[in-house]
Amino acid sequence: MTGTTSFDLPTYLEAERQEVDAALQRALARLVASLPPAVAAAVRHGVTSGGKRLRPILCATAYRACGGVAEDPAVYDLAASLELIHAYSLVHDDLPCMDDAALRRGTPTTHREHGEPAAVLAGAALIPAAALQALEAAQALGCARATSLAVTRTLLEASGAGGMVGGQWLDLMGEGHSLDGAALDHLHGRKTGALLAASLVMGGLAAEAEPAVVDALEAYGTAIGLAFQITDDVLDATSSAEILGKNPSDVVLDKSTYVSLHGLDAARRRAREVVASGLNALNAARVRAPALSGLAHYVVERDR
Amino acid sequence: MTGTTSFDLPTYLEAERQEVDAALQRALARLVASLPPAVAAAVRHGVTSGGKRLRPILCATAYRACGGVAEDPAVYDLAASLELIHAYSLVHDDLPCMDDAALRRGTPTTHREHGEPAAVLAGAALIPAAALQALEAAQALGCARATSLAVTRTLLEASGAGGMVGGQWLDLMGEGHSLDGAALDHLHGRKTGALLAASLVMGGLAAEAEPAVVDALEAYGTAIGLAFQITDDVLDATSSAEILGKNPSDVVLDKSTYVSLHGLDAARRRAREVVASGLNALNAARVRAPALSGLAHYVVERDR
Repeated sequence: MTGTTSFDLPTYLEAERQEVDAALQRALARLVASLPPAVAAAVRHGVTSGGKRLRPILCATAYRACGGVAEDPAVYDLAASLELIHAYSLVHDDLPCMDDAALRRGTPTTHREHGEPAAVLAGAALIPAAALQALEAAQALGCARATSLAVTRTLLEASGAGGMVGGQWLDLMGEGHSLDGAALDHLHGRKTGALLAASLVMGGLAAEAEPAVVDALEAYGTAIGLAFQITDDVLDATSSAEILGKNPSDVVLDKSTYVSLHGLDAARRRAREVVASGLNALNAARVRAPALSGLAHYVVERDR
Repeated sequence: MTGTTSFDLPTYLEAERQEVDAALQRALARLVASLPPAVAAAVRHGVTSGGKRLRPILCATAYRACGGVAEDPAVYDLAASLELIHAYSLVHDDLPCMDDAALRRGTPTTHREHGEPAAVLAGAALIPAAALQALEAAQALGCARATSLAVTRTLLEASGAGGMVGGQWLDLMGEGHSLDGAALDHLHGRKTGALLAASLVMGGLAAEAEPAVVDALEAYGTAIGLAFQITDDVLDATSSAEILGKNPSDVVLDKSTYVSLHGLDAARRRAREVVASGLNALNAARVRAPALSGLAHYVVERDR
């Protein structure tokens, strides 16, 4: 793919999304078979109600950029584990005791549709399912044992104490308080950045990439995670709920945002600078993939 | 240990509990290091506020009964992963949208002490931590790759969709409804039995036991899980909150219990019959361990 000029990002994203959705359907079929119907419905709601599938696509893209075999369907099974974790975090973050959100991607949130007990249980069922999915997919991809362990550890650490769990707490604590720039970066680095970076790291590890390449993928992932959040804040400040498909809730909840902290123009500039630094890290490690450049620009230029 | 007549269960349980608690302290040190203090405190509360450590002790006991090296401390790291999952389930089951419990083991429940958001996040942080702990401990024990995967899968399946998550839902749905004997067995088989059986299976697998032995351990674990729950119902019906250290909440919540269904005497008789069938399974597979016989009787003869 190196050097091609005919790369079309929307076509690429759509094709990838279909592969990811097929893998998610495989995962769901296994997962819901043993769940009571009401919890199964909540799991399906959390996993299938839209979404860009950005994390799995980043994982599969990184895998191929590092020399992984392009056609292996098991890479999408590995990638889907990230979406299962992402879905769990959205379901739990929306709960009444957290953000108490009514809408997500234009539809009622999981607990509004299926009740709070089913939503709590659905989220909790997704975590072990994701761990098992990652472990088995790494093995199916033919990864060495140490690699399988590293891939799974990356997912578990990003989703647990050192990653999203801490980030969600910092986010909650930020309500009604003014955070400075460093605190806001730290919050979003854990809440959003950890899993995005893990997506790329898992793809690179699964392809047995060199440590320097994995480090570059992590830097790129952290950068686009931050750019993604800054852009979210910009969109919250400039779009209506109708376009976003969710409530612009950070403003309502009186959370610090990149826009409230730096203003709209500076926030947009920061997002572009951050993306450029992520792409520089990839270039320095000689990771060349038009999809990764395209995705970096997409993250800051999207309108929802 | 086979055939010894000097086996003293209380001494054994106390020595094992100390090893398990030491392993839990190692696990907690790693886990809380990366958590915000309030969530770290909720995790500590959930993991360290008492408890019999029955699941880890069963795991370590099964490991040794199947020829595992008695002195390897990594077996307690493996065993501790079960307690991390057990702690997560108690923290989440006590939440306002679940059982809304105020007391657990004589102290306020985690959400009453640390707030609901910290309790939800603490529970969610424990799941990936437990998965990682099991995976790494199996490797430290020198398990083959397939065995490590089987050990970890056993933990994840028991804690997820096919096990405790479904069991908790059935338990909630049973409030205010009359369940028949089969439905009550199914509920508790998932809510309590799955993780108890997993404890024994994980110990047997880690010691590379034969499939027939692992099956016998599972049958024994399922049996003592059921006997444990029947005994809980008997204790709820006959003890005060002061002795139990918790509210006798199943009666308050109008849940079906083995006592409400069968009466006190028949419930006690059933617990003994179930334990006997579990011990028969062990005998048939020639698994001889005084600790496993002792534990089976302890489960039905305990007073809290």
